Amino acid sequence: MAELILVLNAGSSSLKYCAYDTHDDALKLVLRGSLEGLYTAPAFRATDADGAEIESRRWDAGTELGHEGAIAFLADFLRGHGKGHTLSAVGHRVVHGGVRFTQPARVTDALLAELDTLCPLAPLHQPHNLKPIRILAAQRPELPQVACFDTAFHRAQPEVAQAFALPADITARGVRRYGFHGLSYEYIASVLPSVDAVAAGGRTVVAHLGNGSSMCALVAGRSVASTMGFTAVDGLPMGTRCGSLDPGVILYLISELGMDAHAIEDLIYRKSGLLGVSGLSSDMRALLASDDAQARFAVELYTYRIARELGSLAAAAQGLDALVFTAGVGEHAAPIRERVCQLAAWLGVSVDAAANAGDGPRISAASGKVPVWVIPTNEELMIARHTREVLAAPTQ
Amino acid sequence: MAELILVLNAGSSSLKYCAYDTHDDALKLVLRGSLEGLYTAPAFRATDADGAEIESRRWDAGTELGHEGAIAFLADFLRGHGKGHTLSAVGHRVVHGGVRFTQPARVTDALLAELDTLCPLAPLHQPHNLKPIRILAAQRPELPQVACFDTAFHRAQPEVAQAFALPADITARGVRRYGFHGLSYEYIASVLPSVDAVAAGGRTVVAHLGNGSSMCALVAGRSVASTMGFTAVDGLPMGTRCGSLDPGVILYLISELGMDAHAIEDLIYRKSGLLGVSGLSSDMRALLASDDAQARFAVELYTYRIARELGSLAAAAQGLDALVFTAGVGEHAAPIRERVCQLAAWLGVSVDAAANAGDGPRISAASGKVPVWVIPTNEELMIARHTREVLAAPTQ
Repeated sequence: MAELILVLNAGSSSLKYCAYDTHDDALKLVLRGSLEGLYTAPAFRATDADGAEIESRRWDAGTELGHEGAIAFLADFLRGHGKGHTLSAVGHRVVHGGVRFTQPARVTDALLAELDTLCPLAPLHQPHNLKPIRILAAQRPELPQVACFDTAFHRAQPEVAQAFALPADITARGVRRYGFHGLSYEYIASVLPSVDAVAAGGRTVVAHLGNGSSMCALVAGRSVASTMGFTAVDGLPMGTRCGSLDPGVILYLISELGMDAHAIEDLIYRKSGLLGVSGLSSDMRALLASDDAQARFAVELYTYRIARELGSLAAAAQGLDALVFTAGVGEHAAPIRERVCQLAAWLGVSVDAAANAGDGPRISAASGKVPVWVIPTNEELMIARHTREVLAAPTQ
Repeated sequence: MAELILVLNAGSSSLKYCAYDTHDDALKLVLRGSLEGLYTAPAFRATDADGAEIESRRWDAGTELGHEGAIAFLADFLRGHGKGHTLSAVGHRVVHGGVRFTQPARVTDALLAELDTLCPLAPLHQPHNLKPIRILAAQRPELPQVACFDTAFHRAQPEVAQAFALPADITARGVRRYGFHGLSYEYIASVLPSVDAVAAGGRTVVAHLGNGSSMCALVAGRSVASTMGFTAVDGLPMGTRCGSLDPGVILYLISELGMDAHAIEDLIYRKSGLLGVSGLSSDMRALLASDDAQARFAVELYTYRIARELGSLAAAAQGLDALVFTAGVGEHAAPIRERVCQLAAWLGVSVDAAANAGDGPRISAASGKVPVWVIPTNEELMIARHTREVLAAPTQ
């Protein structure tokens, strides 16, 4: 009988999942979906690999399904709709692997205890990522689980790229640049050899532009620098996050506006970025469709900051051989890609209007010195691959 | 009888001064010096234009000379040693001119009131910069005074270079990128035409590397971007300041380490940067002379961050035609310049070892695509020039 690897990405109120056929070399997607509103008005959805809906369900508003109920429901659903497969393993997206984890790791009690200690480094995400792991470990202790970290890929960066200029006792507490979106960048690096040998072997900047946005410089497929830092608020402006911000601004908000840490967190994580600047929306589609001056300024600021970070990351890589766009905005927002490429003309970047309008894959002009690609990311598949590999490796 | 322009740069406990001969077209320096330890153990020093000491004096520890006493002493001294000159005007370095001041301004009561409102934007410097202006206005109301702002030169930057991705109501309070060291960059821009026509007319990055460090991208002599932001703590690591720091780190220091705004300010302004990382010294000479691994890492981090910002600023300028080093470290630390040039080789930057060892002025290889210069800065002369120009302009 065939077997499934289940991939889970748990947030504070949602659970996203994908199921892959382990007996297929390429790990064929069998089905995917989500459970949203876990503590308010739960909703379940499942589609097949082609996006056709298999099932959807809504619970009454006020129902507290919770993470535990969601996992029980999902397990039941998979038994009924798994098409004769059994569940062989579960791979989890875990935002933080700290300094130590440069690779995915098989879940044990000791691992969970160690990952708990990293919660202060990512209080908004890490505890929620760990919940389903604990629930499954209790309910099905025989089921192998693998934790895949969004930070691990960036641990290859040189020390200077990971360090803040802070005293050693602060750094020793883990206050350093971790970089995130690592599973996305690792996936892109894994497919680059089949796309473009120069991009795979050379100095390539990948722009992961989604609701969360970051950029990463790769040299021969390894991360050498990235824009997100200690947290996922640093670097590029995002849908609702401010990106890079003078730390003196935070001191000003405290001393002059009387804001506390909670209010500041709300401001810089949920009220800034495209939403804050435009005063209109965090959704790039809405901004691109708007004639409003502030909406246009938000888009201009976003692309300008991408272009500035591209220069900084090219410096980290000592040059630029290729540029890759990925994630929601990167894969679908042609005007954003066009503007970034215009601002990067000094680096030899060009854009072919027709190819860009068609979302690529190659969008640079045929004569362009630096090839520019649109490559869809697939963090879930990366987690499934890691999960298979970790379980296939000899146990210590 | 000849006349002097006095230039004052007042800090919390010190007063630096220069006196220039207004009747000399080039504004010849007549004498310069400082009063330090104004509230603890005052010390006065004056040298002539060649650096030969004219006079020095120390007061007993515990003496509170204060800003008022310092100015009275300096006025007496100038009367005695002004070599037959009279004081025609005073030019002041004022750190903050806010959004409105794109040029120096003649001091009036209304101006002082407006500059007072900017104190919350620079609480560590602005109040001290304004003190001597008020004292002189009270004592010698007939003496013309001119305020020269460290922010004014950067107001030419495009809006995207000055904006944080924050909501409009926060931005409207003045939370934006001001950039500092503007008088230094303006001075460099003013001498570039006599140094290198390409650098003067093209895309030039100036690295002002001193105890405070920043960088600025010039296009045809105008600022298009700079590394310092809302405050002078942002951007490059400095002697004791951290430079760019994920704002999430500040929230972590508050919530996990229980630090308050005062303790955080002390950390990021006075215990970080070269001092914090090395655990040894904020003085580049001491670090370059040390074999200690942390000292070497501090230097490596400093040069790496300069190289990253160089890429980012080249993006803002859409390329790089010339690179200029200035200020204490920039003018005298050949190993720092050499390392930065090595890291910038991808931009066409080169370094000639012999020329670099001799502190330039041109330190790039003869065959180098991008000329690299060492140019001593002179903020005081820039203030003297501004003062003369403002007073020569027709009054409104």
